[in-house]
Amino acid sequence: MLTFEMILEAREALAGVARVTPLHPVPKFGKDVYIKAENLQLTGAFKLRGAYNKIRSLSPEEAARGVIACSAGNHAQGIALSAAKLGIRSVICMPAGAPISKVEATKGYGAEVVLVPGVYDDAAREAERLCHAEGYTFAHPFNDPLVIAGQGTIGLEILEQLPEVEQVVVPIGGGGLIGGIALAVKEKKPSCRVIGVQAEGAASMYRSLQMGRPKTLTSVRTIADGIAVKRPGDRTFALCREFVDEVVTVSEDEIASAILALMEEQKTVAEGAGAASVAACMFGRTPVDGRKTVCVVSGGNVDVTTLSRVITKGLSKAGRLVELTTKVTDKPGSLWHMLQVVADSGANIISINHNREDKETEVSACVVTMVLETRDQNHVDSLRRELSARGYLTRN
Amino acid sequence: MLTFEMILEAREALAGVARVTPLHPVPKFGKDVYIKAENLQLTGAFKLRGAYNKIRSLSPEEAARGVIACSAGNHAQGIALSAAKLGIRSVICMPAGAPISKVEATKGYGAEVVLVPGVYDDAAREAERLCHAEGYTFAHPFNDPLVIAGQGTIGLEILEQLPEVEQVVVPIGGGGLIGGIALAVKEKKPSCRVIGVQAEGAASMYRSLQMGRPKTLTSVRTIADGIAVKRPGDRTFALCREFVDEVVTVSEDEIASAILALMEEQKTVAEGAGAASVAACMFGRTPVDGRKTVCVVSGGNVDVTTLSRVITKGLSKAGRLVELTTKVTDKPGSLWHMLQVVADSGANIISINHNREDKETEVSACVVTMVLETRDQNHVDSLRRELSARGYLTRN
Repeated sequence: MLTFEMILEAREALAGVARVTPLHPVPKFGKDVYIKAENLQLTGAFKLRGAYNKIRSLSPEEAARGVIACSAGNHAQGIALSAAKLGIRSVICMPAGAPISKVEATKGYGAEVVLVPGVYDDAAREAERLCHAEGYTFAHPFNDPLVIAGQGTIGLEILEQLPEVEQVVVPIGGGGLIGGIALAVKEKKPSCRVIGVQAEGAASMYRSLQMGRPKTLTSVRTIADGIAVKRPGDRTFALCREFVDEVVTVSEDEIASAILALMEEQKTVAEGAGAASVAACMFGRTPVDGRKTVCVVSGGNVDVTTLSRVITKGLSKAGRLVELTTKVTDKPGSLWHMLQVVADSGANIISINHNREDKETEVSACVVTMVLETRDQNHVDSLRRELSARGYLTRN
Repeated sequence: MLTFEMILEAREALAGVARVTPLHPVPKFGKDVYIKAENLQLTGAFKLRGAYNKIRSLSPEEAARGVIACSAGNHAQGIALSAAKLGIRSVICMPAGAPISKVEATKGYGAEVVLVPGVYDDAAREAERLCHAEGYTFAHPFNDPLVIAGQGTIGLEILEQLPEVEQVVVPIGGGGLIGGIALAVKEKKPSCRVIGVQAEGAASMYRSLQMGRPKTLTSVRTIADGIAVKRPGDRTFALCREFVDEVVTVSEDEIASAILALMEEQKTVAEGAGAASVAACMFGRTPVDGRKTVCVVSGGNVDVTTLSRVITKGLSKAGRLVELTTKVTDKPGSLWHMLQVVADSGANIISINHNREDKETEVSACVVTMVLETRDQNHVDSLRRELSARGYLTRN
């Protein structure tokens, strides 16, 4: 059972261990919007707080045997670093296909990593088996009062850093982060609203609250892998029902746009889960309306491959990258003529594919597909008009 | 003539205008390495400091007429915001091809933007013409004592934030940033080394110091556009000769790796110029050797298109993205057989190009070029071995 006092105790225990992360205004997202930058937490995510608070609370006997967890993400690194700081053995089960970078990072913090053939659920079963066989303590990623109390320290920090805060927007995966923050905030300042955000493709808490009981989704799919959780915990569900004012969802495109905006405008790297709270404000999923609003950016451990895709998508949306399909006659010099139009417009060619065997084209024509760097949507539109006027543009 | 007192005065004038940016350790780059995060400065770069210090020093007559500058980069935004804060008119000349995002950002801070047909030099000439014709004060981006004094306030902040600092590493474009920092540092702590960093493709100060006089490069080429300067100023050259201990250069690949490392490990976005100082330490261009070293990350205004290229390049170097050229026999099912090897290895296909008309291949074969997402260099190597053992691998 989680109490406010447990959050206060966690706060003391975390002093000098976890960073008090910066809270600062992000005027470009609205003059009353702030971010709490847990992406700058040690290990790159808030998970360290709960993990450390759990492990430091072990009895001497439990501590001597060690802890085990199942995670290929931020929880793994939080447990690994916390255990190392406390001189306790930690074992992390991961599915065998986990990115090498995550495996290496977790080992780097001092954990033993067990790669389990199969998917996440297989790794979880193996962790449970080892837990019983070896006597480790199992560290749940969210459904544990000590873990939730650790995350709740973020709520205390927000109230100290911005006493006039009127609403806090928090991403929800399993619900440990928002559960702790909501309890802390409502205890100290009941008038402050707490709003949860989930990805549309992984809205397990959202659905559970609608149903009135924890519900299991059959599948989850989102770039915000940190909050891709199929079922909330019973403890975190109860906390959300009691203390959270509203849960909203955001789309994949909205999350991607928020990641890009945080990079371009705030020079900061957020993972999908971390950017979800900002996305909710950017796209009006929860109104700001002049209320002092803190978005919790929960982590920054985004794979650069994902980041690269997010950027590409963002560039397309902004008219800075475009794919055009054109048609040229099948005779010498015709590609060259068409490319003169592209060159004159100032667009930069990234890739080009010239194909004579397109079945939808007449026999005397070739299809040329180009990916171009452009300045903005106006630039794209004027290039389209130019190509169209000369009979080159076919589709799109 | 720049004096230490001018830097102290600039410090007072900038209080409440420019942010005192964070200085923090970056343990992954070496336990004694710190960054001074001027990418988190208002406008995303240090330029605001010098620009504001220049404009606030105008006489009432000059202020009434307004200022003019020529820049499509950070100087433009620094001037625009400073002038707006002081209620002074500002005009910025930019070459007509400047990115729309820069034009909009500069207008957004309140400047009038004049787009001049041609390249940078044409815009500079137009700025000079307008300056004489309209009586504006010209704000030089670096070769002005008041501008240099403004940048020097960073040196004072570093000494206060980390009094035990032993060396400061600073990117050099025109030399205003390092000139101011070097004078401030050497006045207060002569034992502290000051090291300049230039891009190999734009090493004008490096060459000038070798020659003993300011030298003009015929061309400059680097992704670090913020320090792509053909000729240092005479004032900044003199300051570097007197106060800077050493100037080193870094390659384009080193700059790109530093940008990527700052994103992945520090969750912070630096532009090429900003990452150059970190690159110098990462790649041993200047030894750290246990000395407390502060790298000035001068700005974060990197175009996301550039960022996307940097990521792609970084992924290739890390074995997380690979292009492989294979050969399959020209008969049904052969591509499918080859792709089974790829699928079994767990590599993810990004693009594939199957070509029957490659002139170097025998008549009965087709060339298949694939771009794949891989886990790391070991993964790439084992896939290569597997493809090679079955006779698929051709080149690379």
